[in-house]
Amino acid sequence: MRQDYRSVGTIFVGQRPWFDRSVQESLRGMDEMERIDAYWRAANYLSVGQIYLMDNPLLTEPLSAEHVKPRLLGHWGTTPGLNFCFAHLNRVIRERDQEMIYIAGPGHGGPAAVAHAWLEGTYTERYPHITRDATGMRRLFRQFSFPGGIPSHVAPETPGSIHEGGELGYALSHAYGAAFDNPRLVVACVVGDGEAETGPLATAWHSNKFLNRGGDGVVLPILHLNGYKIANPTVLARIPEPELLKLFEGYGYRPHIVSGHEPAEMHELMAGTLDTVFDQMADGGPLPMIILRTPKGWTGPREVDGLPVEGTWRAHQVPLTDVRDRPDRLETLREWMLSYRPEELFDADGRPVEAVTATVPDGPLRMSASPHANGGELLRPLVLPDFRDYAVEVKSPATASTEPTRVLGGFLRDVIAANPENFRLLGPDETASNRLSAVFEATGKEWEAALLPTDENLGPAGRVMEVLSEHQCQGWLEGYLLTGRHGLFNCYEAFIHIVDAMFNQHAKWLESSRKIPWRRPVASLNYLLSSHVWRQDHNGFSHQDPGFLDVVVNKKAEVVRVYLPPDANTLLSTADHCLRSRDYVNVVVAGKQPVLDLMSMDEAAVHCARGLGILEWASTDEGAHPDVVLACAGDVPTLETLAAAAMLREHLPELKVRVVNVVDLMRLQPASEHPHGLPDVEFDALFTTDRPIIFNFHGYPWLIHRLTYRRTGHENLHVRGYKEEGTTTTPFDMAMLNDIDRYHLVMDVIDRVPGLGSTAAHLRQRMADARLRARAYTREYGEDPAEIRDWTWPAS
Amino acid sequence: MRQDYRSVGTIFVGQRPWFDRSVQESLRGMDEMERIDAYWRAANYLSVGQIYLMDNPLLTEPLSAEHVKPRLLGHWGTTPGLNFCFAHLNRVIRERDQEMIYIAGPGHGGPAAVAHAWLEGTYTERYPHITRDATGMRRLFRQFSFPGGIPSHVAPETPGSIHEGGELGYALSHAYGAAFDNPRLVVACVVGDGEAETGPLATAWHSNKFLNRGGDGVVLPILHLNGYKIANPTVLARIPEPELLKLFEGYGYRPHIVSGHEPAEMHELMAGTLDTVFDQMADGGPLPMIILRTPKGWTGPREVDGLPVEGTWRAHQVPLTDVRDRPDRLETLREWMLSYRPEELFDADGRPVEAVTATVPDGPLRMSASPHANGGELLRPLVLPDFRDYAVEVKSPATASTEPTRVLGGFLRDVIAANPENFRLLGPDETASNRLSAVFEATGKEWEAALLPTDENLGPAGRVMEVLSEHQCQGWLEGYLLTGRHGLFNCYEAFIHIVDAMFNQHAKWLESSRKIPWRRPVASLNYLLSSHVWRQDHNGFSHQDPGFLDVVVNKKAEVVRVYLPPDANTLLSTADHCLRSRDYVNVVVAGKQPVLDLMSMDEAAVHCARGLGILEWASTDEGAHPDVVLACAGDVPTLETLAAAAMLREHLPELKVRVVNVVDLMRLQPASEHPHGLPDVEFDALFTTDRPIIFNFHGYPWLIHRLTYRRTGHENLHVRGYKEEGTTTTPFDMAMLNDIDRYHLVMDVIDRVPGLGSTAAHLRQRMADARLRARAYTREYGEDPAEIRDWTWPAS
Repeated sequence: MRQDYRSVGTIFVGQRPWFDRSVQESLRGMDEMERIDAYWRAANYLSVGQIYLMDNPLLTEPLSAEHVKPRLLGHWGTTPGLNFCFAHLNRVIRERDQEMIYIAGPGHGGPAAVAHAWLEGTYTERYPHITRDATGMRRLFRQFSFPGGIPSHVAPETPGSIHEGGELGYALSHAYGAAFDNPRLVVACVVGDGEAETGPLATAWHSNKFLNRGGDGVVLPILHLNGYKIANPTVLARIPEPELLKLFEGYGYRPHIVSGHEPAEMHELMAGTLDTVFDQMADGGPLPMIILRTPKGWTGPREVDGLPVEGTWRAHQVPLTDVRDRPDRLETLREWMLSYRPEELFDADGRPVEAVTATVPDGPLRMSASPHANGGELLRPLVLPDFRDYAVEVKSPATASTEPTRVLGGFLRDVIAANPENFRLLGPDETASNRLSAVFEATGKEWEAALLPTDENLGPAGRVMEVLSEHQCQGWLEGYLLTGRHGLFNCYEAFIHIVDAMFNQHAKWLESSRKIPWRRPVASLNYLLSSHVWRQDHNGFSHQDPGFLDVVVNKKAEVVRVYLPPDANTLLSTADHCLRSRDYVNVVVAGKQPVLDLMSMDEAAVHCARGLGILEWASTDEGAHPDVVLACAGDVPTLETLAAAAMLREHLPELKVRVVNVVDLMRLQPASEHPHGLPDVEFDALFTTDRPIIFNFHGYPWLIHRLTYRRTGHENLHVRGYKEEGTTTTPFDMAMLNDIDRYHLVMDVIDRVPGLGSTAAHLRQRMADARLRARAYTREYGEDPAEIRDWTWPAS
Repeated sequence: MRQDYRSVGTIFVGQRPWFDRSVQESLRGMDEMERIDAYWRAANYLSVGQIYLMDNPLLTEPLSAEHVKPRLLGHWGTTPGLNFCFAHLNRVIRERDQEMIYIAGPGHGGPAAVAHAWLEGTYTERYPHITRDATGMRRLFRQFSFPGGIPSHVAPETPGSIHEGGELGYALSHAYGAAFDNPRLVVACVVGDGEAETGPLATAWHSNKFLNRGGDGVVLPILHLNGYKIANPTVLARIPEPELLKLFEGYGYRPHIVSGHEPAEMHELMAGTLDTVFDQMADGGPLPMIILRTPKGWTGPREVDGLPVEGTWRAHQVPLTDVRDRPDRLETLREWMLSYRPEELFDADGRPVEAVTATVPDGPLRMSASPHANGGELLRPLVLPDFRDYAVEVKSPATASTEPTRVLGGFLRDVIAANPENFRLLGPDETASNRLSAVFEATGKEWEAALLPTDENLGPAGRVMEVLSEHQCQGWLEGYLLTGRHGLFNCYEAFIHIVDAMFNQHAKWLESSRKIPWRRPVASLNYLLSSHVWRQDHNGFSHQDPGFLDVVVNKKAEVVRVYLPPDANTLLSTADHCLRSRDYVNVVVAGKQPVLDLMSMDEAAVHCARGLGILEWASTDEGAHPDVVLACAGDVPTLETLAAAAMLREHLPELKVRVVNVVDLMRLQPASEHPHGLPDVEFDALFTTDRPIIFNFHGYPWLIHRLTYRRTGHENLHVRGYKEEGTTTTPFDMAMLNDIDRYHLVMDVIDRVPGLGSTAAHLRQRMADARLRARAYTREYGEDPAEIRDWTWPAS
């Protein structure tokens, strides 16, 4: 069966050959490879149709300009290769009854995934108006990359996908994340050779050192060397083949090359290679991977206006443009589409013929219908211990200290123990540094590379994943969550910016998914940001950046939540809430250093449920209208606020001070802007509309202004926060560098509350002096003064 | 010369043996390896001293608790390995008269770089109070990671550094960036095996495909396998050695292993390997690289409290803690420091003896003194053509269209031609897509891998760098700029978020550098963000994110600038300004799609110099107090604002409308907050204090509130912008999805200007209808209505 598709298209000019039953009858005798080829041609036909046509999908009428979309938007180059892989993997699924999902790294090849889902019948099941016939095919074509239609990329709208390929870099991390704790699953992951140049992808190959062949599934990477990006060749396509093989052997894989462009030869080669590869998956040796080398835009136009297109970067998007305006191009398009011999593939009503659908697996084994790719279908709620059982006892507020994350570690230990198959804790080498070490009483760190006798908490089947790549942590977790499991990513606060772009894409995925009825809710992506800006004493300026929150709040209010629990008990309550939630991104910022215990567990639970509230024991307004509101969010700012409140109580006892702590940052937004937004009447009652508000904030101060600018009292709001001053210094010196310290807060109050008189003026001077003394002490002795380090709320 | 340092320390208990001249006399006969060893021991001694001591630097008194810092903050683990490399590279520098700089990927090993600079004399040249004697040594120790002192990491404060190693991932990209167009330079780059797990580092090995052995220098990567991160082994240290070698051969290098822990053997091995490696650099074969396998915390305490420390993760930071409180640990510290035999290394005044300094290269060949590592010393201003020569002729405003980036391409072409050795244009495969293709008339894209006859604009010595890794583009450019050259990074707007964390670090580098007198200003880092949120018609939601600006404005006002030129001429003027500036990060957002030409070149230059201004031809207030201000920033928002202004002029001719365009976003901030901030009186004159301001913004709308919340007129400000609505659709549908379209702006005006009466009410209804019609048209025909697509400012 040697073919050159391009030579046969014109035979059918002006005919509707699929009315001739004999053509299709002849296909009943097809062998397996011929059926795979038929499926591939059908998928390619449907892909080209999506990019170009808004009508006349089966070319039953002479093709004319008005059948062609006015704006040609799509990516052809990668699509035939993606279709080729789909077609061949289906055979393996059927023959081996293998659960499999497909990750299209070159996700801009959306037409391929859509064509596949339509051929498998899933598209019609998900979107009943897109029927699997000529009417549905017309709608399928028209809606693609069309106003009111579907995205041009593989997207949440695409059945069978857990991966939007828009940004590039994360296909393989997603694939491994999907495979963890999925022992029966194979994740086929096509990696584009453009994407392979990105950093995250380049390190993701090493994920094999973290895949437990006992309890996890298998990832089959298929590196698709189609040779070109938008405008350039790719690096991996242009290095010598021995170098390429060494690279992947060096990454710890057994590489297999499938290279060529003659379809019949390539079908035989791919099928044989897949048989070998699936046998190898079970033999205990290194994981196999496939290097698939095919022309970019394979089977598309070879040349356009004398320039080569197939096999070059020119095939990347729309290889034939100006089709509406140039009859010669319209004819080329028609010939191109007919080269797939649609008359053999679809019946007169546009339904795919049996020879095509015969290659499709059954029911949930169809990759487009796999429940693994709609993880909410498989999601089981976590078995959660009662977080109250881990409470720190608080006899009186702010008189004893606890490391909040250490307490959380105990809770997480038992979460891990109670959910041995569907919860993972991820972090870049910092789980112990972030003081969550109690988890190692229940589990170890997953590790499949060599072990030494000195190693601790390391080995196969660990529930903690540590690799020094925030990209990998994020990518693994996304893959794990989107296939229906739960997890928590703990990270140094400053370096979570490394995954800003990945967060953006995941948030967009959730934003889109929430509008798609068949997408079932998945577990929220939970971040625990510790080792935060105020306590990077030993790492200094490069480790001081609380700006991730600013990135997060740009995303839609429906999907983002930000929590700043000020002590251990509020952290426990927050963590419990986050682990129960669905379809959100929860960002929790909490310190690992000792902080004062503010609330009993009952108080903490109420405070967290409200999201913010008055600390009455620290306030002196006693229910009356206060003279000033001291607001705070974050553990260190709260500590400094309390110390300021204590000084004001002592030195200006007549001043009515109200202390408000904010745990749930989104409460500050108007109710019209965020589902958690506090109604204006409540906000005004809490913060007043006419009194100065000194807001001591964990992050960059502008964020508070941004969240509150519509509030009545906003003009009275004065925000302190991190203003990009820092270095390796003591904690209190850091506070002073940024004016969030207790002394400065007292000065702020005195500056803003009118009519305080000479006592206040005197106090203000003492505060200024105290700052100078504290700084001098620090510079002399290298640590904070004892009265700062040991400060607690004064006994009443 | 076989040694075990630990066994000899106690000999000198209570003595001050360096007073004994005979000891030092005996060193005069040292051979080269012994001198290198002495240098290494001196550096190690100084490193330990920095971490631990605040007094008694030469241990001339019995060591007591008060000599030890109260807070022990630093990273020992990597330091002896860094010192080892320094010591050996110095020999090569001297023997070969080789210009070299040193990049410490494990930049938390700050003590090593500081010790080195002090031994070389550079530290004292940069900081005269840190003399190269006992007094200076005491200050050197004390200041390290101490309040008021220096950071614990290699930082801008460290002589000889262009790389803050805090975040990890970028050492090798920085190294290659430094080597580009530096034909006489070798960049020695130590890559930690922790950092090697990050994505950016994993792909940076492929930089060798972009290094032109003709015009560029050489990078010598030294992968330091010390085996551990903070709490875990590293992946590369635990894979089989044959796999490791294949990996680096696959990356295209010739790897050499230097492995061991016996100092004498290691000195011989390292010296011999370096000789081989430097010979290989010149032989035309693949670049060599070194895999250095030594124990973590080499030469430090072997065990503490029965647990192994040297050679494990426990050596990562401070291997001995509680030294002040535990006499046994104090004694261990003393023995550890004396094991380096300081009496052989420093004279009675604390000066390094000749045997130590003899290994130091001369003058600017010292790596700590290299002008390449203080690039401003080498910086030559760009030869810039007159940007006015590239102007688009504008006969009347907003009546013809131009693609701004295409015009910029012509200017950049000539910048490249005029500066063939110190300007590079970088981008992830998008220079042509961003329509800067004119540059290919002057140069090609740098490419050292295989070439095919079909390739275009590709080959060695190209000035354009394209690789599908934003991390690589950013890292290369940072390395290039910090060694004294110029460049521009063009990128899709949404995906610049990929380098958020790198931007943060570079901005912090600049923030710190500006306070260091000896750091000379370097060229600004210029971003051109094109293919922006409003014109990602074919890629859709994943490609729509204008939030990089929010990240940027978190950094200090002194170093960040944001420009949104609305047309081609303003883009030219902005680009010229940015290329002349120093020590900033300039972010320029400009479209590649045709936009209306608004201003002649003269007008554009004036408008850009002011940063914002009234478009008088579009306004109807004629110098009087307007009824409403229509403000805009960004090309698409400006277009929609103009169209709205035209409709208001036609339909509500009595309404006094003022149109204000903002190019320089920082003008919106108060003068107290940003050097570009407009004084309040000017802001009020422009925007009024009492009239509605409808601000149509390119990015997320909250940013405008954040910049203006202190302005008097802020309460009247209503901002439209991107509110996270998008998909693959037409440009005008995108505008409508986010309510920034002309019709909605007219409705906003009518809603906010009181007393407009029934004509306005009627107009408002027409606007709402027009939106519905436009949407319906788009969904039917797949493109925007002609009256939208072809709209220009009406002839007067």
